[in-house]
Amino acid sequence: MPKIVDHDNRKKAIAEATWQVILEQGMKGATVRNIARKAGLSLGALRHYFSTQEELLIYAMDLVKERVSERVEKIALKNLPPKEMVLQMLLEIVPTNETTRAEMEVWLEFVLFFRNKGNRESQNDGILEGIQKLLDSLDRAQFLKKEIDKDLETERLCALIDGLAIHAILNPTRLTKERIISILAHHIDEICHFPF
Amino acid sequence: MPKIVDHDNRKKAIAEATWQVILEQGMKGATVRNIARKAGLSLGALRHYFSTQEELLIYAMDLVKERVSERVEKIALKNLPPKEMVLQMLLEIVPTNETTRAEMEVWLEFVLFFRNKGNRESQNDGILEGIQKLLDSLDRAQFLKKEIDKDLETERLCALIDGLAIHAILNPTRLTKERIISILAHHIDEICHFPF
Repeated sequence: MPKIVDHDNRKKAIAEATWQVILEQGMKGATVRNIARKAGLSLGALRHYFSTQEELLIYAMDLVKERVSERVEKIALKNLPPKEMVLQMLLEIVPTNETTRAEMEVWLEFVLFFRNKGNRESQNDGILEGIQKLLDSLDRAQFLKKEIDKDLETERLCALIDGLAIHAILNPTRLTKERIISILAHHIDEICHFPF
Repeated sequence: MPKIVDHDNRKKAIAEATWQVILEQGMKGATVRNIARKAGLSLGALRHYFSTQEELLIYAMDLVKERVSERVEKIALKNLPPKEMVLQMLLEIVPTNETTRAEMEVWLEFVLFFRNKGNRESQNDGILEGIQKLLDSLDRAQFLKKEIDKDLETERLCALIDGLAIHAILNPTRLTKERIISILAHHIDEICHFPF
């Protein structure tokens, strides 16, 4: 296996160890020492891949973003009926299973951690841009209702998604998967009309 | 002044010092020692009012909730046109000024702090109940559209409110007061019809 792949895989394994530590102990447990232990590496070996804690955390955060994007792109290729496609894409962000729940928990910890550090750059989670792209493509396909204000609807859907995501984490028994799906389906129907 | 009032006022002053410390240093700075210093009290004096940090934090959290409720109730008494009333009430939760912004920041820190401690009780922020009461009263006044699903709309509005609130804190330059008002006004129009 070429060395660069091995290097990348090792970095990904360290990012996964980071998520695990955050899920178990919150952000305050995410020290370089704890992460190295979880990844089964010496502190020196970990430092070979990431020289600072911040560098490691930003990498781990970007990897969450990348994985969500990959899953969303796969859905785009599935050739689903348009409403079903939109719904499935949004369900990659609002957590309804173990993977997406863990991602959102880790994400929230990241956002607040970097916010307290005054690092506003890293807060861009790409959701707004994703929703923008989604509404643009619905618009091109003439599925968006004529009378809607696209900018306003982008912002509104983005707020709804993040609000649902947080409630799904804080109140998983109230906000079941079925409930999340009905809310999203209803919201999609409000801004779109699908011929089938 | 009767002693009980003095006692209550002192507790409120300590809660305000707590908010201040959280705004300046985040939750990790909210030690009993730091709070006592900010309130200008000795550690012993503070312990007279709150015997544990948790007791103090829960009191400070409840006081945020109480103040928001008081402001919402005042709006209900103002005799405003119904849409304007609903809008003003929602704007007591989604931050568009210094007071509500600080409250939401502190609130978010509280929620995540108690969540990490496994204390799920304290997460009930009363927003869902508030929105429920609001939609019930709009329903009684026949302002709700006939075809809507009240439970689903309660959950949806609640998610929208919290999503907007978090975005307003994280991206205050993007999510201006005007933008928040147009989104909320549009959403209200979707679930209500007002005769004037």
